[in-house]
Amino acid sequence: MNTFGRIFRLTTFGESHGRGIGGIIDGCPPNIILDSGLIQKELERRRPGQSKITTQRQEPDKVEFLSGVFHGKTEGTPIGFIVWNKDQKSKDYDDLKDVFRPSHADYTYMKKYGIRDYRGGGRSSARETIARVVAGAIAKQILSEAGVSVIAYISQVGEIKSDKFYTELDLSRIDDTIVRCPDQETADKMIARIEKAAGEGDTVGGIITCVIRGVPAGWGEPVFNKLHADLGFAMLGINAVKGFEYGSGFEGTLLSGSEHNDIFVRSESGVHTKTNKSGGIQGGISNGEDIYFRVAFKPVATILKKQDTLDVNNNKVTINPGGRHDPCVLPRAVPIVEAMANLVLTDHFLLSKLNSI
Amino acid sequence: MNTFGRIFRLTTFGESHGRGIGGIIDGCPPNIILDSGLIQKELERRRPGQSKITTQRQEPDKVEFLSGVFHGKTEGTPIGFIVWNKDQKSKDYDDLKDVFRPSHADYTYMKKYGIRDYRGGGRSSARETIARVVAGAIAKQILSEAGVSVIAYISQVGEIKSDKFYTELDLSRIDDTIVRCPDQETADKMIARIEKAAGEGDTVGGIITCVIRGVPAGWGEPVFNKLHADLGFAMLGINAVKGFEYGSGFEGTLLSGSEHNDIFVRSESGVHTKTNKSGGIQGGISNGEDIYFRVAFKPVATILKKQDTLDVNNNKVTINPGGRHDPCVLPRAVPIVEAMANLVLTDHFLLSKLNSI
Amino acid sequence: MNTFGRIFRLTTFGESHGRGIGGIIDGCPPNIILDSGLIQKELERRRPGQSKITTQRQEPDKVEFLSGVFHGKTEGTPIGFIVWNKDQKSKDYDDLKDVFRPSHADYTYMKKYGIRDYRGGGRSSARETIARVVAGAIAKQILSEAGVSVIAYISQVGEIKSDKFYTELDLSRIDDTIVRCPDQETADKMIARIEKAAGEGDTVGGIITCVIRGVPAGWGEPVFNKLHADLGFAMLGINAVKGFEYGSGFEGTLLSGSEHNDIFVRSESGVHTKTNKSGGIQGGISNGEDIYFRVAFKPVATILKKQDTLDVNNNKVTINPGGRHDPCVLPRAVPIVEAMANLVLTDHFLLSKLNSI
Amino acid sequence: MNTFGRIFRLTTFGESHGRGIGGIIDGCPPNIILDSGLIQKELERRRPGQSKITTQRQEPDKVEFLSGVFHGKTEGTPIGFIVWNKDQKSKDYDDLKDVFRPSHADYTYMKKYGIRDYRGGGRSSARETIARVVAGAIAKQILSEAGVSVIAYISQVGEIKSDKFYTELDLSRIDDTIVRCPDQETADKMIARIEKAAGEGDTVGGIITCVIRGVPAGWGEPVFNKLHADLGFAMLGINAVKGFEYGSGFEGTLLSGSEHNDIFVRSESGVHTKTNKSGGIQGGISNGEDIYFRVAFKPVATILKKQDTLDVNNNKVTINPGGRHDPCVLPRAVPIVEAMANLVLTDHFLLSKLNSI
Repeated sequence: MNTFGRIFRLTTFGESHGRGIGGIIDGCPPNIILDSGLIQKELERRRPGQSKITTQRQEPDKVEFLSGVFHGKTEGTPIGFIVWNKDQKSKDYDDLKDVFRPSHADYTYMKKYGIRDYRGGGRSSARETIARVVAGAIAKQILSEAGVSVIAYISQVGEIKSDKFYTELDLSRIDDTIVRCPDQETADKMIARIEKAAGEGDTVGGIITCVIRGVPAGWGEPVFNKLHADLGFAMLGINAVKGFEYGSGFEGTLLSGSEHNDIFVRSESGVHTKTNKSGGIQGGISNGEDIYFRVAFKPVATILKKQDTLDVNNNKVTINPGGRHDPCVLPRAVPIVEAMANLVLTDHFLLSKLNSI
Repeated sequence: MNTFGRIFRLTTFGESHGRGIGGIIDGCPPNIILDSGLIQKELERRRPGQSKITTQRQEPDKVEFLSGVFHGKTEGTPIGFIVWNKDQKSKDYDDLKDVFRPSHADYTYMKKYGIRDYRGGGRSSARETIARVVAGAIAKQILSEAGVSVIAYISQVGEIKSDKFYTELDLSRIDDTIVRCPDQETADKMIARIEKAAGEGDTVGGIITCVIRGVPAGWGEPVFNKLHADLGFAMLGINAVKGFEYGSGFEGTLLSGSEHNDIFVRSESGVHTKTNKSGGIQGGISNGEDIYFRVAFKPVATILKKQDTLDVNNNKVTINPGGRHDPCVLPRAVPIVEAMANLVLTDHFLLSKLNSI
Repeated sequence: MNTFGRIFRLTTFGESHGRGIGGIIDGCPPNIILDSGLIQKELERRRPGQSKITTQRQEPDKVEFLSGVFHGKTEGTPIGFIVWNKDQKSKDYDDLKDVFRPSHADYTYMKKYGIRDYRGGGRSSARETIARVVAGAIAKQILSEAGVSVIAYISQVGEIKSDKFYTELDLSRIDDTIVRCPDQETADKMIARIEKAAGEGDTVGGIITCVIRGVPAGWGEPVFNKLHADLGFAMLGINAVKGFEYGSGFEGTLLSGSEHNDIFVRSESGVHTKTNKSGGIQGGISNGEDIYFRVAFKPVATILKKQDTLDVNNNKVTINPGGRHDPCVLPRAVPIVEAMANLVLTDHFLLSKLNSI
Repeated sequence: MNTFGRIFRLTTFGESHGRGIGGIIDGCPPNIILDSGLIQKELERRRPGQSKITTQRQEPDKVEFLSGVFHGKTEGTPIGFIVWNKDQKSKDYDDLKDVFRPSHADYTYMKKYGIRDYRGGGRSSARETIARVVAGAIAKQILSEAGVSVIAYISQVGEIKSDKFYTELDLSRIDDTIVRCPDQETADKMIARIEKAAGEGDTVGGIITCVIRGVPAGWGEPVFNKLHADLGFAMLGINAVKGFEYGSGFEGTLLSGSEHNDIFVRSESGVHTKTNKSGGIQGGISNGEDIYFRVAFKPVATILKKQDTLDVNNNKVTINPGGRHDPCVLPRAVPIVEAMANLVLTDHFLLSKLNSI
């Protein structure tokens, strides 16, 4: 249950305060030139301490490849890798050893396994996503050869949202702001909103929008593994995610069929649709238009405020944690959303090779 | 890619106008008494022609079991079953043989496979969900022995929505109205809204809310197969679904962490949470509270209005389909949502047996 | 656990005396022209009552396709099919209802499931292999387009064996004799040997040799799913099989490395090996030479002689079954061995498409 | 394709001369006390340089756990581990960079992947089995709690074989001799036979017998995943294996049904069979008797003799490798056979928990 994908498969391991976070990528085609700079760049985008609005923990997060790469190229054999844990202050967690933090996984892990690594959330820590970012960066290189690009950005923080549809934004400028919103004016408000939350020892949630370009018509599977079902599954598997919608999404429920249908039209480049309420996917299969979706993130559960809760002995306790935490996960979640989307699409790219003999 | 589940696995087959729709359930435990009345009742709830607000096609949809059941009990061997197709009027579809209907899967199937059964949408028809309802009804019986119940209802049709949270509604009365909304006053408005759409030859979308009770703490998997990720994957695999959210969902992005966190409290029946923004799932694992989620359905693509589109030769054509279609899929989708949720939970129920030796 | 294959996947259902035996083939590429004559021919080769040395039960075993085929071609959607049970005389089995027949699966099914369909062995009957023969015949058509052929024959019945290596035999003449041994002189002795066993109410085992030609270098997976491991797994999953060896097999243990190694040589058609002790597979991957292997079948457990045994209440009983049974399964097992080999190779053929992007 | 198992899953990575060999164990139940001494002991039994009849390479092969273990117990989360490569002399392999060694995987890897790590066989090296031995040792601890033990020994080296059936041998004394044959007299001859091969720069094959005790009736799956099919698949996935047989095996083909059938008898401890030709498995499911099987290993392909072959440019070359190699893999393969059997049985042990609700 720690494996993601069918053809291009990532299996991850690691706890927040264990030796490190790593994984095995199986099913990666051979002869892909590994661009370690690109991989490291994605890790940097996910890394704590990257800006004033993220946690100030300093973790270098350098990936070390253990197998599957020879003379800079993938071999077709499994790619083992690890990012060693460095800046853990496990002592910080001794106080929380017997406590179930509200809206964390402490209680549910204990009920499921009867044992848990309480240090920094153990396996439930979002630090596990490091492995996904590494694998996603490799998937990105494969997709790049297929002409596919995945770009995510923050479209909402708390009540601050950008009114612009993705087509009105310059998506090449996402990393221009530390909040990863390409709408500059809104970005400033978002940063202020996050700083306000941080100042109050509180946290704030938001929405990430993701756009996928260049997928040809014909990727996806028609029944259970619809392309959007696989994307939704991938997104809902990211820590703190509460919702997923693609194309017209929840708002589309307000339209009539005649308003919602995307009319096919001819253009120089072939068949297109006049509108794109479908979000680039019809019947679970890509239709050649842009794929876009939105992912809702709850406010982080770790707050720097007093909270009542219970301990493992069912006693009432009050916690008041200190430490270095993210007031808002979204800036660091952007590369994670992209990574998961890259994994899904690479899987469907490879699966599409099986559509004929 | 036509298999759903890991332990309790459903593989489906069938096209809308082929011989029938069926499947194989593998991994069903032995010695479950099959309640064929219950299975048939779920099929009746999904069946066309059940009320004035669904398509008037009359399909009896009786399930025939082909294996795996002996003297009324499951044997532990695979359960094969089929619902024969009866009321197909394939001739109706000859006009559409070469046409890509807007927002249907005609075009994408053709691009993926280079061949398609154009009659009634072939495999892309929601008729495929018959197999899910059969399997879901068996799963429901298993869950019933575990004390778990899954109930879905319509909470929104177009712009008509019930203001009540599920806890304010009597969920035992869902089937009292043909629109499967337990809020009687709103139900009447929803029926009128659907009839209005039907009168205009148009269609309307909406939202189904689903509530799961009785799941003990400890079901689910912490990383990719979080309980809500599996539920979301299941829902997004249903025809016409555009979005999924659980617990606080998209609205939860507007709250601060201190507002969103669910505080643990003691009660006579054990550990509980004061609020349930988490939707019964923390870190991907059930915490013993109610699980609830919402599913967005787009308006059906088949409308009884003129529409421009293209044919397989890339020529512009105008279609104006007649026939018997659903102005709103939601009343018939309620048992499908329940079926998929039952499949997911049965899988996790069985997986939970592996948490210790 | 009733699914075979990773890309080209067969899931089977059915009991010997239930409604029928069938399955779903998922992952079959689209646009394969289904040659129903070829499929039926393979079923004829497996069918009871085909000659004097097989059981005299008469079962027509006609396959009915339920989905996935349109205008005679595969659609890329799952192919459902069934062979209805016809000539079952379930009454014959009432005496055996509570008895554990020696070396059958009666006892072990009961211990595993706590319930069993005792009629004709239920799911443990070799009648289940009908579904494999149907799927294997489709796989054969796919492989035929890839230039690959699978041929099996009987090389030993009891102590009667052909001394000739497969290269000395005319494998196009296997079906010339009812015992499916292309070595005519030995075939006659085998037939006599089987008739002798039948006359004594006893049974006899033997060995099937299988030869695969035309597989290019590069199919297979290097670690767990070595091509021969997948073939061995497939063969050991056939009823009554007790052993599998490929290439030099058990005899190869008597050679030294210098005798066993296959020296690479150039030929007009490319790289070859001087000898083929490797059986066409090195490091789990095909090397372009013929693949060949041998499969050992035990004598059938159903004998027409008195035997002591126990019943479900742990009481001693004596059984003396009548009925129509095979004195030797091997003639009818030849198409089953071929079918399973065709399934394995089709899977690896499709997997080989993933070796590059 | 580098994952083994369904519930208790091992995914491996690593090349012979890369950073190390490791893996991830997923699906291991929580709260198993990890006996690192036992794990290390199994690695010692597999390790090069352990005696005069194995390769003299010195590799310490210490396992380092990276995750999934907390305070000495498994957590239920994935167990990552690595054994770092130490004693590689990669320079030794520069001469073989462009050469296809006879009966090695050099040629087939090149044809499959178009790239290969030529150093020490890369991924095709039996060094990969280190990961299996680690995982197998953990599986062994789980089985031990279920009362199951797996013991393997060498029953044949070249033409030297022990005439004794396993029941006549003291299986607790297998490690008393460096050749791991509990029949002392035969063991001496085997050692001499291996030393003779080594003296000639040649290699020798043989057979390993494996005995599994304590499996209760009811483990296994009846169709494709018969218990012996899973065991055979596991064994055929070990480097240099050419054949697998269980119970009466190939010799059983010489018996009549009346001789081969195992009669059920009552005993104090319950139902048993008088004989055990079935090898403890009937219809793919364990019947409570001992499970036993035999595995054929070819002589190692690496010999210290001149051999003609081809290089990557299709030119004839002569190789005459030096280096430190095993004249016979069997003594070191005993723990590998045991490890793979432990993995298969642990999987079926866990699967058996799903036989009822």
